[in-house]
Amino acid sequence: MQAFQGYSREELIERRNELLKEYENYKNQGLKLDMSRGKPCSEQLDLSNGLFDDTSNLFSVDGTDCRNYGILDGIKEAKALFSEVFNLKPEQIFVGGNSSLNLMYDLVIKAIVLGLNGSEKPWGKYEKVKFLCPVPGYDRHFAITEQLGIEMINIPMKSDGPDMDMIEELVANDETIKGMWSIPMYSNPTGITYSDTVVKRLASMKTKAPDFTIFWDNAYGVHHLYETEDKLLDIISECEKAGNPNRAYMFSSTSKITFPGAGISIIASSKENIAYVNKLFSKQTIGFDKINMLLHVRFLKNAENIRNHMKKHAGIIRPKFEAVNEILTRNLAGKGIASWNNPKGGYFISLDVCKGCAKKTVALAKEAGVTLTPAGATFPYGKDPDDSNIRIAPTYPPIDELKKAMEILSVCIELAALDKVIE
Amino acid sequence: MQAFQGYSREELIERRNELLKEYENYKNQGLKLDMSRGKPCSEQLDLSNGLFDDTSNLFSVDGTDCRNYGILDGIKEAKALFSEVFNLKPEQIFVGGNSSLNLMYDLVIKAIVLGLNGSEKPWGKYEKVKFLCPVPGYDRHFAITEQLGIEMINIPMKSDGPDMDMIEELVANDETIKGMWSIPMYSNPTGITYSDTVVKRLASMKTKAPDFTIFWDNAYGVHHLYETEDKLLDIISECEKAGNPNRAYMFSSTSKITFPGAGISIIASSKENIAYVNKLFSKQTIGFDKINMLLHVRFLKNAENIRNHMKKHAGIIRPKFEAVNEILTRNLAGKGIASWNNPKGGYFISLDVCKGCAKKTVALAKEAGVTLTPAGATFPYGKDPDDSNIRIAPTYPPIDELKKAMEILSVCIELAALDKVIE
Repeated sequence: MQAFQGYSREELIERRNELLKEYENYKNQGLKLDMSRGKPCSEQLDLSNGLFDDTSNLFSVDGTDCRNYGILDGIKEAKALFSEVFNLKPEQIFVGGNSSLNLMYDLVIKAIVLGLNGSEKPWGKYEKVKFLCPVPGYDRHFAITEQLGIEMINIPMKSDGPDMDMIEELVANDETIKGMWSIPMYSNPTGITYSDTVVKRLASMKTKAPDFTIFWDNAYGVHHLYETEDKLLDIISECEKAGNPNRAYMFSSTSKITFPGAGISIIASSKENIAYVNKLFSKQTIGFDKINMLLHVRFLKNAENIRNHMKKHAGIIRPKFEAVNEILTRNLAGKGIASWNNPKGGYFISLDVCKGCAKKTVALAKEAGVTLTPAGATFPYGKDPDDSNIRIAPTYPPIDELKKAMEILSVCIELAALDKVIE
Repeated sequence: MQAFQGYSREELIERRNELLKEYENYKNQGLKLDMSRGKPCSEQLDLSNGLFDDTSNLFSVDGTDCRNYGILDGIKEAKALFSEVFNLKPEQIFVGGNSSLNLMYDLVIKAIVLGLNGSEKPWGKYEKVKFLCPVPGYDRHFAITEQLGIEMINIPMKSDGPDMDMIEELVANDETIKGMWSIPMYSNPTGITYSDTVVKRLASMKTKAPDFTIFWDNAYGVHHLYETEDKLLDIISECEKAGNPNRAYMFSSTSKITFPGAGISIIASSKENIAYVNKLFSKQTIGFDKINMLLHVRFLKNAENIRNHMKKHAGIIRPKFEAVNEILTRNLAGKGIASWNNPKGGYFISLDVCKGCAKKTVALAKEAGVTLTPAGATFPYGKDPDDSNIRIAPTYPPIDELKKAMEILSVCIELAALDKVIE
């Protein structure tokens, strides 16, 4: 759709003057609104204040004193809980500390120095190693591969997941393509959940590299906003069925279930991969925080209780997602200058403005007191080739602030588009 | 001293027969005694059960909600606490998760892939990189460098620290010697605290590698057993004084102050190094567990309170150290078959038996139900060139069990020595 179709130049200039007044008005209010990161809000955090209710004994079900050293891969009941949630066997699970991102980083850097299960040699022994990066995607994924010198290849996201034709073609012919980032459910930021077909194709495709590895960041696996939920196929069993049992590592955490700063995390994969992970991690630490695992299991209890807990989260943040959609629709629909998704879960709304307008829009918003994720952040190296994608993180601000910020953002989007069309 | 000086062969054979009876007697009791790891005992852990007493609010002094994301390098009050304990500036401190070992691993593997502050290139770009390893030392240090392919060079421990003549000679002439492990206070397992002279020589020596790095594992910095304490010079300020401000990273944790499985840890170094550490770690995680930091600061309060808390630990474990010494002295003194130290702090007693007898002694003990750290574990690659060192970890078992285990160990030491002398 073309921008401002049917409007004359004069009408557009008039509209711009109108908006500039509005914009100046906002600027003069000295606002400080932050929509930059996918952080839960206080009310969401309060849902888990019961985490510390029962610290009277700190022994695990099998009698392990969780205060002391020991147990590298997590206490029994933590494995059991994640087994139930993700339909895996306990021996397919490694329980880590407060950050699944850290587990991903650990695994990538170990692949570079030591290789993964099935590697012919450590990745660092190749001249160059590459990762596939569905875009727009998660900046912190891209930051890991950038820091570690892994070349990133953009893979466009389609409505059912990443472009599989492109992926299949690439991995079939290049043995230096060693991995792929993915947030397969309620993806950051597109909100897309990979279709069954996409998951099956990822699991079964021929790869030139025997150790091609899917980093399956299932960060939003239970983070539904509505009763009607997206469904995601289990990559690990699909890989097994397809004869590639060691292709995928799934990561997840309680960061957006209980406390982002103080949750627990997991790696899940084939039994063989997890045995290898244990071997890799055995030199790194004696074990992760078992007390926190214990308190999490006591608080979260089981899969059904987690479902109910997540409904409370949804109750708090769904109105925020809906407010964003309502305001964008009211201000921008039909103008051909912005499109956005309406996710059924997760933490983000992905907004595409006119080509070449994202940086300018974010800068305008910043000047008016609204902090957004930097334009470009959703692409490897921070470079959005179209300069068009903006990630909206609606969960953290109070709803009144969010609404105000969205009104301001709407003005900024239209101003940036008008500037482009008029000049 | 020669073994069994002044005894005739007949007397020794008779003594062996006597001991064999004793040994069989122990074996038939089906004992299960574990002195293998340096773990605090339950009574020690109970000293910190108050850690969870105040979880009513989880906000840090500066208003940070510790439940949420944010703050890579640790909350203000945690830095302040460690600043006071170790006489450092807050900007010299990075606060991590439950494992200082993990922080060491992180730094070594990052040095390999990315290099450290001051590195000409990542360590992985050299054909070979080497570490100096004072021996006997800590098996988990050696396991890190072994896994990561770093060659280890044994440096004998003298009564005041590692052999500095040897170290100075080596580092002056070999640019591939990139680092050194050290436990400078109440060393694992020798109990030695590095003298001021040793610390000053380490800080000021000329190194061929500009990025030669001392991994200063100050695991037992406040872990005194007696009123008369060892004193350790601060390596970081000594390095600064000597014009090598970025040479050393100090690591420490609350593992043996509060809970080994669930404490908090730090890296400390020059302000510049810590800024670099922040940069390195910024891609790995959003931050470590701030709630646990907060609860630790609330519980531990300040340096003086930590001193008092550590006195309670000492009260529990000092009798265990003394029992080990009493039993070894009573059974073995004057026989020329064993020597051991009487540490003033830390977690270990280092026992040297006759050359070639450590493995046999440990095996005999195992058969009689006493598990010790494997012989050789205190050396790189698990290879004690003299097969003589055994690490005793007296803290974990109840004192009655410990005493029985030491009686059995005494028998095993003497039996192994007799076998050697007689055959």
